[in-house]
Amino acid sequence: MTEALVRTDLYAQVQHFYAHQMQALDAGRFEDYARTFTEDGVFQHSPGVEPAVTRPGIVAELIAFQRRFENDPVQRRHWFNHIALTPQPDGIVLSTVYALVVTVRPGSKPEIAPSCVVHDILECTEEGILTRSRRITHDQMF
Amino acid sequence: MTEALVRTDLYAQVQHFYAHQMQALDAGRFEDYARTFTEDGVFQHSPGVEPAVTRPGIVAELIAFQRRFENDPVQRRHWFNHIALTPQPDGIVLSTVYALVVTVRPGSKPEIAPSCVVHDILECTEEGILTRSRRITHDQMF
Amino acid sequence: MTEALVRTDLYAQVQHFYAHQMQALDAGRFEDYARTFTEDGVFQHSPGVEPAVTRPGIVAELIAFQRRFENDPVQRRHWFNHIALTPQPDGIVLSTVYALVVTVRPGSKPEIAPSCVVHDILECTEEGILTRSRRITHDQMF
Repeated sequence: MTEALVRTDLYAQVQHFYAHQMQALDAGRFEDYARTFTEDGVFQHSPGVEPAVTRPGIVAELIAFQRRFENDPVQRRHWFNHIALTPQPDGIVLSTVYALVVTVRPGSKPEIAPSCVVHDILECTEEGILTRSRRITHDQMF
Repeated sequence: MTEALVRTDLYAQVQHFYAHQMQALDAGRFEDYARTFTEDGVFQHSPGVEPAVTRPGIVAELIAFQRRFENDPVQRRHWFNHIALTPQPDGIVLSTVYALVVTVRPGSKPEIAPSCVVHDILECTEEGILTRSRRITHDQMF
Repeated sequence: MTEALVRTDLYAQVQHFYAHQMQALDAGRFEDYARTFTEDGVFQHSPGVEPAVTRPGIVAELIAFQRRFENDPVQRRHWFNHIALTPQPDGIVLSTVYALVVTVRPGSKPEIAPSCVVHDILECTEEGILTRSRRITHDQMF
């Protein structure tokens, strides 16, 4: 079975990598988030949009997205579940992960939508993990 | 404390086993899902229904369930949380896990219900993990 | 990167510790929950309330909270996500975790609110993990 091929420490490392990565994104620490990508990293946060490329490109994309909510204070939390890894040669790992976006506005209840799947290509080396490419698919688009 | 008795690698392996198992179920890969059970595996997906037994029995049950939604396209995602393991002798591990079923229909927001608890008996060997029996309880039935 | 500093076994142990801790809380096993804190443990379950201190103090607080729901049967499930650890000297680990409270009443659908962040100080020794202090912040209060 596929999961038997994944070293235990790699699995825990990927989980922890995602925890810090997504807490950085949700806290608006976009430079920190971009640094979890490779220098030439590719980030497509929604189906059909042009992907952001390179760390500065990812930061610019996130700032542009945030600007749309300037008059609408909102706290987002990206939840992940069922991280399924498929190792490839040369330290590359394909990672397929369920995601739900939790959106909270002041004084109101969280809205939990959309349901997504994250398709990552990860580079796993002795120095740690980096995202080479991230693509998101949305469950309601089928 | 109970958790100290569980080897680290076992815990990560069970998490990863569940990730692949549930992604197979939600993708409609029922043969793959059934193969995560032992040959004589038992699967009771809802309280009060007769459990499906053996891998072919599990596949048949899932196909019958899916048929009910032939004219109602739907994407389900089974989320898991708080995997609590209690090892028994001979490589048997009891696993109690929170579950939420996320149901998405085209163009609409996810419905998140019911809240369940998964009660698994797992067989953990050098070759990997298999589910010997799975029983689901529903939180709204109390 | 921060996550590289965390030993793999520590990460899996913390995850498993939380699984047992929160299943104890949600099952109403308050003595078991209190024992996951240090003897002088501090637990502030909501912003602005006086924290409960010591294990007997935590049990008393939880019993008092439960009494409010004597005529309102309810099953709560505290879901956790993205456990981000930052180790400190002397076996202390800061843990920042997303949380959603799933509340189920008989025959009805789960309510998923509020969205919170758990801020823990953990003591990690050879004997296992204990919570020294827990503070909860709520996302809708910003």
